[in-house]
Amino acid sequence: MRDFLPADIRKREYVINIVKEVYESYGFEPLETPAVENLETLTGKYGEEGNQLIYKILKRGEHAKTGEADLALRYDLTVPLARVVANHKNDLPKFFKRFQIQPVWRADRPARGRYREFYQCDVDAIGSKSMVVEAELCSAVTEVLQKLSFNDFIIRINHREILRGMLDASGITEEKQNDALVTLDKLDKIGKEAVLKEFVGREINEDAGIKLLDLFTMLETVGNKDALSFLGKFIGGNETGKKGLNELSSILEFANLENIKIDASLARGLSYYTGAIMEINVPDLAGSLAGGGRYDGLIGMFGKEQIPACGFSLGLERILVVMEERGMFPAELQNASADVLVTVWNEETISESLELAMDLRAQGLRVLIYPEADKLGKQFKYASSINVPFVAILGDEERAKGLVALKNMQTGEQKTISRNEVAETIKIHK
Amino acid sequence: MRDFLPADIRKREYVINIVKEVYESYGFEPLETPAVENLETLTGKYGEEGNQLIYKILKRGEHAKTGEADLALRYDLTVPLARVVANHKNDLPKFFKRFQIQPVWRADRPARGRYREFYQCDVDAIGSKSMVVEAELCSAVTEVLQKLSFNDFIIRINHREILRGMLDASGITEEKQNDALVTLDKLDKIGKEAVLKEFVGREINEDAGIKLLDLFTMLETVGNKDALSFLGKFIGGNETGKKGLNELSSILEFANLENIKIDASLARGLSYYTGAIMEINVPDLAGSLAGGGRYDGLIGMFGKEQIPACGFSLGLERILVVMEERGMFPAELQNASADVLVTVWNEETISESLELAMDLRAQGLRVLIYPEADKLGKQFKYASSINVPFVAILGDEERAKGLVALKNMQTGEQKTISRNEVAETIKIHK
Repeated sequence: MRDFLPADIRKREYVINIVKEVYESYGFEPLETPAVENLETLTGKYGEEGNQLIYKILKRGEHAKTGEADLALRYDLTVPLARVVANHKNDLPKFFKRFQIQPVWRADRPARGRYREFYQCDVDAIGSKSMVVEAELCSAVTEVLQKLSFNDFIIRINHREILRGMLDASGITEEKQNDALVTLDKLDKIGKEAVLKEFVGREINEDAGIKLLDLFTMLETVGNKDALSFLGKFIGGNETGKKGLNELSSILEFANLENIKIDASLARGLSYYTGAIMEINVPDLAGSLAGGGRYDGLIGMFGKEQIPACGFSLGLERILVVMEERGMFPAELQNASADVLVTVWNEETISESLELAMDLRAQGLRVLIYPEADKLGKQFKYASSINVPFVAILGDEERAKGLVALKNMQTGEQKTISRNEVAETIKIHK
Repeated sequence: MRDFLPADIRKREYVINIVKEVYESYGFEPLETPAVENLETLTGKYGEEGNQLIYKILKRGEHAKTGEADLALRYDLTVPLARVVANHKNDLPKFFKRFQIQPVWRADRPARGRYREFYQCDVDAIGSKSMVVEAELCSAVTEVLQKLSFNDFIIRINHREILRGMLDASGITEEKQNDALVTLDKLDKIGKEAVLKEFVGREINEDAGIKLLDLFTMLETVGNKDALSFLGKFIGGNETGKKGLNELSSILEFANLENIKIDASLARGLSYYTGAIMEINVPDLAGSLAGGGRYDGLIGMFGKEQIPACGFSLGLERILVVMEERGMFPAELQNASADVLVTVWNEETISESLELAMDLRAQGLRVLIYPEADKLGKQFKYASSINVPFVAILGDEERAKGLVALKNMQTGEQKTISRNEVAETIKIHK
């Protein structure tokens, strides 16, 4: 877990502000949930591996001695959302569109762009089964990434029901299908040969596995339209698969995006997905920048009513890592945190320096005051060490005449001007 | 711990944005630290009572079975700041001015404006012993509260060294002075009589206690200038007390604020304060809106070097509670989260509705689309339930002619206009 110094925060806020702005333009509203959830809210939602990565909080007071945990740190933003929707149903619109940008915690091994505390930027639409939802989510996330200047990302899309249909059609029996999905989820990392080996290890019919992997190979080189038609043929009369294909076809039509590509091998690890699943990748990052999908069964786990839902989650740290490596941040982020430093002439005139600083702030400038009476040379040296573009000096002579000596730290030029010209002069150079 | 629905977030962000804007105008820079700290970083920093309120996190993996804790949730923002300054000294300017707005967690009994997860808005200046620091902090916090429309708050100020001087002069022996301070800290809550009783219980000389409390009574009705002079006489030749008085006098001169008042009885609970201490109160809240002070000894606990520091912490939830009760939020915060809802005529025309929505977004509007083909009446009813000011309809006739029917939901007026007039018409009413 890391400290974020001011320069880090500026980069993070640059990204977060674009995310917010885009999501708000789609009518998504902000939600925040506590960092701490009841342990039982989280357990059983993330699979066995996920369970191991949950940070657990010790009971307080007398119970502390038992070593028992009753609370846990938020593991993702989807389960808390489901809990909120179930709890606050009557306070929320029927079609609740929310975004949430908060940290989550996982006791995982850190790697590039992966930390134990990291931020997710989630966007979810609750209450509709229409594929308009999936299409809008893909559009919104695309717009976020484009506004951040990404132009080489691909949204890979698949559908859990198409996966079921493909597994059926390959001849993988129903009781082996969950095993097959868990294995398939590693395809990107371990490759086809290793997947087939793991299939065999899990006692999945080898011929069925080969048939499935051959389909994937064939689909790799075809466009979305052909992929839909090949998949239709492969799946044949399988009802579940056909429903998935219809939905996927609607999403592609509604979203109408260049950068969306059917990837029939995409499985996604989380167990709560029920329909479309999506993942966003760029060439220079092994993991994904974003992932999401439809989870029509999750909210019902926290309330009486089953409410459909679909969402997308952007990994802030992943985005930042790639942007840093590619130099994608605007230069302005490196500007100083103040427009001017007001120096202090001596102990006796501190109040006058403070007054000038207040004046300039009232005119919209960000103003530092050197906090102590000190040699002027030292004050200039400090100004230059923090890159502040202007230094204001209130010497004996200047004060007597109501003037201020203003030094431009970039050009070295120093001019003595009237007090009420100072703010204007600095603003011109901003 | 609470969920924050969109209406809550809007209020919180309104306050946070003003806090940020003001602090940035003083040249304070943003810092963020992890929610989780090493347990040992936190223990021993907040007094015995504080220690009890720390949320502890269970060890992971094999160690989980021991019931031991090694991590803990952030308890305040001052101790993490001290750790950061000690760790990152070379990456920070000599006079590091930072603000930090993040949640902290305390396993406390909830009360009005007090929660187990709550946000602190801290502002601290590191690296200088000058009273310019205290003065600027008081000015900055005053500006924040004034921009939020508070006009009846008082900054109570005192000084740990004046307190020492007063205790000495009263005749309270040095080994009893910490006990006396702990008791004095409750004066607001329990009153003078109970304080005297507790003094006696703690074997503090009763006459000394009476002398001290009489001084407080006398000071209650006098202005700052008289308070300084009375305190000077009371303290006499006590060197520590005199130093404190000089510093307090400089702060008052530099800050030059109407709303700052010496309160010689102010003690503040935290043990790390070494100089000036401040607290901000309003009449209709029992606790304080903000508190702070100088802590020149804390950073040295995390590094080799002793670095002076002073800060102020605003309690976001306290501010929100008072603002809510007084109705201080601007009316705009209740506006809808979208400017227009685009309806869907039927299944076949969904893409055209989506296209219109994208068009309007590109022109700077926040646009919702009704996610499903449904009866138009139901779509209007939904628009009105979420207070969206305009509804756009793309019926068969409108589509044929490149027009849009736009209904103003406030006036009920519906006009059919050309597609490229839609955004303009909505913006005029914003």
